[in-house]
Amino acid sequence: MPQLSPAPSGPDPSAPGPASSRLVALDWGTTSARAYLLDTAGTVLDTAPAGRGVLAVTDGLTTAQDRRAAFEEEFERMCGRWLEAHPALPVLASGMVGSTQGWADVPYQRLPQDLEALAGALTAIPTRRGPVHVVPGLLADGELPQVMRGEETQILGLLETAHGDAHTGGRRGTVVVLPGTHTKWVHVEGRRVLDFRTVMTGEVYGLVTRHSILGRLARRPDAPDLEAFDRGVRTSLSADADGGILATLFSARTLPLTGRLAAEQVDDYISGLMIGAEVASWARDRPASGGSPGAGPAEVLLCGEPELCRRYQRALHQLGVDAPVVGGDVVTHGLRSIALAAGLLDAPTEGTA
Amino acid sequence: MPQLSPAPSGPDPSAPGPASSRLVALDWGTTSARAYLLDTAGTVLDTAPAGRGVLAVTDGLTTAQDRRAAFEEEFERMCGRWLEAHPALPVLASGMVGSTQGWADVPYQRLPQDLEALAGALTAIPTRRGPVHVVPGLLADGELPQVMRGEETQILGLLETAHGDAHTGGRRGTVVVLPGTHTKWVHVEGRRVLDFRTVMTGEVYGLVTRHSILGRLARRPDAPDLEAFDRGVRTSLSADADGGILATLFSARTLPLTGRLAAEQVDDYISGLMIGAEVASWARDRPASGGSPGAGPAEVLLCGEPELCRRYQRALHQLGVDAPVVGGDVVTHGLRSIALAAGLLDAPTEGTA
Repeated sequence: MPQLSPAPSGPDPSAPGPASSRLVALDWGTTSARAYLLDTAGTVLDTAPAGRGVLAVTDGLTTAQDRRAAFEEEFERMCGRWLEAHPALPVLASGMVGSTQGWADVPYQRLPQDLEALAGALTAIPTRRGPVHVVPGLLADGELPQVMRGEETQILGLLETAHGDAHTGGRRGTVVVLPGTHTKWVHVEGRRVLDFRTVMTGEVYGLVTRHSILGRLARRPDAPDLEAFDRGVRTSLSADADGGILATLFSARTLPLTGRLAAEQVDDYISGLMIGAEVASWARDRPASGGSPGAGPAEVLLCGEPELCRRYQRALHQLGVDAPVVGGDVVTHGLRSIALAAGLLDAPTEGTA
Repeated sequence: MPQLSPAPSGPDPSAPGPASSRLVALDWGTTSARAYLLDTAGTVLDTAPAGRGVLAVTDGLTTAQDRRAAFEEEFERMCGRWLEAHPALPVLASGMVGSTQGWADVPYQRLPQDLEALAGALTAIPTRRGPVHVVPGLLADGELPQVMRGEETQILGLLETAHGDAHTGGRRGTVVVLPGTHTKWVHVEGRRVLDFRTVMTGEVYGLVTRHSILGRLARRPDAPDLEAFDRGVRTSLSADADGGILATLFSARTLPLTGRLAAEQVDDYISGLMIGAEVASWARDRPASGGSPGAGPAEVLLCGEPELCRRYQRALHQLGVDAPVVGGDVVTHGLRSIALAAGLLDAPTEGTA
């Protein structure tokens, strides 16, 4: 079935998606919102124009009532024409839209958590178009709590993309790595999330290359310099990195200063140092974040922005770990699975106002 | 001898410092410059109004000639009146003034380096007031080079302040910690620098608390919350910190989010996490950065901004390490020692034009 190109927004009952439309799926995060019209198989029939993320929607609004109204308005802008044409369509959303800063505070689910079982913990937000169901995020409690909102849905979708319908619970487990501003390392067995960790590599990389003294000897390269990246990874995997990333980082100043790193290589070298340090921490701590001691390495899957995934792949390769990148519409797959498990897809009339 | 208060700048031959004046000592760094008039004992007789650091002096200047002229002008503004009254006074400077970005590129000295022997490697910059002698910085070569400019002089001064004239070379060694934007951990035996490491804790702390997502749940406290700081240190010294500082940092978001850290505690908790991680790295790596394996702990001395030193002291205390803070005018002591070793203090006529 062909993927339709985005239609202009605003009610347009004449062409709001084919009759096979079955689910409105929303991936609504902090900085962006994407809405998809899916059929029962999860195929994307239509995509709404990009919506505003949670931060932009709530910007300047102080009361909960105003914020709720702003979310409903943004939802209407993205999905109104679909629901005008097919009022019975169920709506399922994931991401920061279900947080204290979002449309409704959907309570976190605690680990261990079967991802399909999230279907039993949806929160319904009433709107004039009917309920918007929201997938809860996950909380790993402990001395250093871990939270995610949205990634749980991506992970479910990517496990299905990678494994098909087989619940590969008999394996040593899967480590799902979601590189980004705050990279998640998630330890899964079958469809069950056991543990995860968040590393602020992406955000600190941005701060350090743009705002620190390390930027002074750097020049933006025309193209990524993967040799400089690999060198940074190698350093972070070596004994020279024993002082921690905040010590090895300083070499991004002293190497150019001593003529041993070109200005154009500095950013990619820093990227390698940081992703290398992240990968090295995971390798040291492997029993806790994936795979049992002595059980051999767990399967590692990457999912996210392709160029960034390739960097993690190269870094893991230096450790002898082959980590395939899982592409495709993992969020829509995840939302479809949860909708199926929740009975939203089988009983679309539940979605009417 | 009483310390005189700063006199107005500009030539004033009637009161430019007592007849016992023997050395003009300059601590000229990236962001600030301080000039002192010393007697033979190293007592500060007069202090010049604060001068501009290397960055401000050279701001907007593109040619080496213009930069040299700007440095000479700034030098004249700080020290002209002293040298007008006592033309024979020798002048000794340390810091980034002796770098490629500074007044003259003074070659680094390689490790191991006896600090008093730096007196034999001064670079003289000719001026109309006579030569300005500049202390070279230190370079630790290797896969990850280390550099310092200015700290070598502080270290010499603080070793003398802490140990008197005794060269305590027979001990297990001293670890000198200079907390700051880029904290230095320096391994010394007697007056000999064996090795050092630079950690970007201070700079990354500033970026993370001001510009990252961690700032969103933080509120500036009225007073430092040392309990929150200690908690951060404890976390970074625990097995929970195995994921590295970029992973533990995320707890400065999830703890407030789950109601387990107050908004006013976030900054001090982050400070504890980061200084704790730095101290933990040093402890793991102790043989390389101070003390031989099995020889017991080396002496640890702190020197720098008092409030920041107290934080490092508290963090080291959690490891069972007592680290006294060395106060006083360590730079002027260091400059005096190098001037003595170089014969500048015994032969002040060498300083004339």
